[in-house]
Amino acid sequence: MKTFFIAAITSLALLTSSCMENKSENKETELQAIFPKGELGPKENFTGNAWNIGLVANDTMYNTLVGNVYFEPGARSNWHTHGAGQILIITDGVGYHQIKGQPKQTIKKGDVVKCPPNVMHWHGASPDTGMQQMFIVPNTEKGIVQWLHPVTDEEYNNAK
Amino acid sequence: MKTFFIAAITSLALLTSSCMENKSENKETELQAIFPKGELGPKENFTGNAWNIGLVANDTMYNTLVGNVYFEPGARSNWHTHGAGQILIITDGVGYHQIKGQPKQTIKKGDVVKCPPNVMHWHGASPDTGMQQMFIVPNTEKGIVQWLHPVTDEEYNNAK
Repeated sequence: MKTFFIAAITSLALLTSSCMENKSENKETELQAIFPKGELGPKENFTGNAWNIGLVANDTMYNTLVGNVYFEPGARSNWHTHGAGQILIITDGVGYHQIKGQPKQTIKKGDVVKCPPNVMHWHGASPDTGMQQMFIVPNTEKGIVQWLHPVTDEEYNNAK
Repeated sequence: MKTFFIAAITSLALLTSSCMENKSENKETELQAIFPKGELGPKENFTGNAWNIGLVANDTMYNTLVGNVYFEPGARSNWHTHGAGQILIITDGVGYHQIKGQPKQTIKKGDVVKCPPNVMHWHGASPDTGMQQMFIVPNTEKGIVQWLHPVTDEEYNNAK
């Protein structure tokens, strides 16, 4: 009887432990990934690791470029502009978006932000949590992207 | 001692049961919802329940309309066209997309489909599994949507 009880307790403990482990493993992955990770963005345009995958290539039928970026914690784009602006859709995680001259915004899963045409901005993950973000570059006949200088640590960490 | 064992077994059994229940509950929810559900699409334009939420309103700066639709199992849009085409991005679940004259496609999480300008198409969930789908209507100066007739059960279920 005692052996039975010990066996039963051990089995249940293992089952519970396994169930709880599966749940925490899910949280440690790169957030909720909808798309393949893609390729690392070049160091010339990003600080830290930003994984880019194209979803809709630019063409003359839709004039719309769409992609997904997974920013690892601390990673961000350089300052840059878009000839017709850009739309960002955050599908998981937490990050930042800043338009030149405006306060840095904290953005998270479910948020949508827009940057107007020919206005400098940057975006990336928060220091501790990554960010899954889709982007839409509309009206590509007006230009796609013009990359500028990196975002300094001071700018990245600035509370404003 | 026997009381202790019984209490321990009961506690562990409840803990395991609760852990497993949480996991299955997640699967029974409306898939991975990134955005609020929104409003039911009108019966004039949809068969079954299709929940629409706007993400980017149409304007003259971006000329791009973006939204999310959660199609419940069996739900679909009517046949319709878009003046500058449409891009669909499936973020969870399984569904169908059909361009007039072409075979019905099965689409799932991570897929991206495009419908050219002024071409009839419909999209919706599969019979047993819902679908979370973002849509992009680009170049809205050419038109947004023209709704047509419902998709018949025969068309919806057609293997072709």
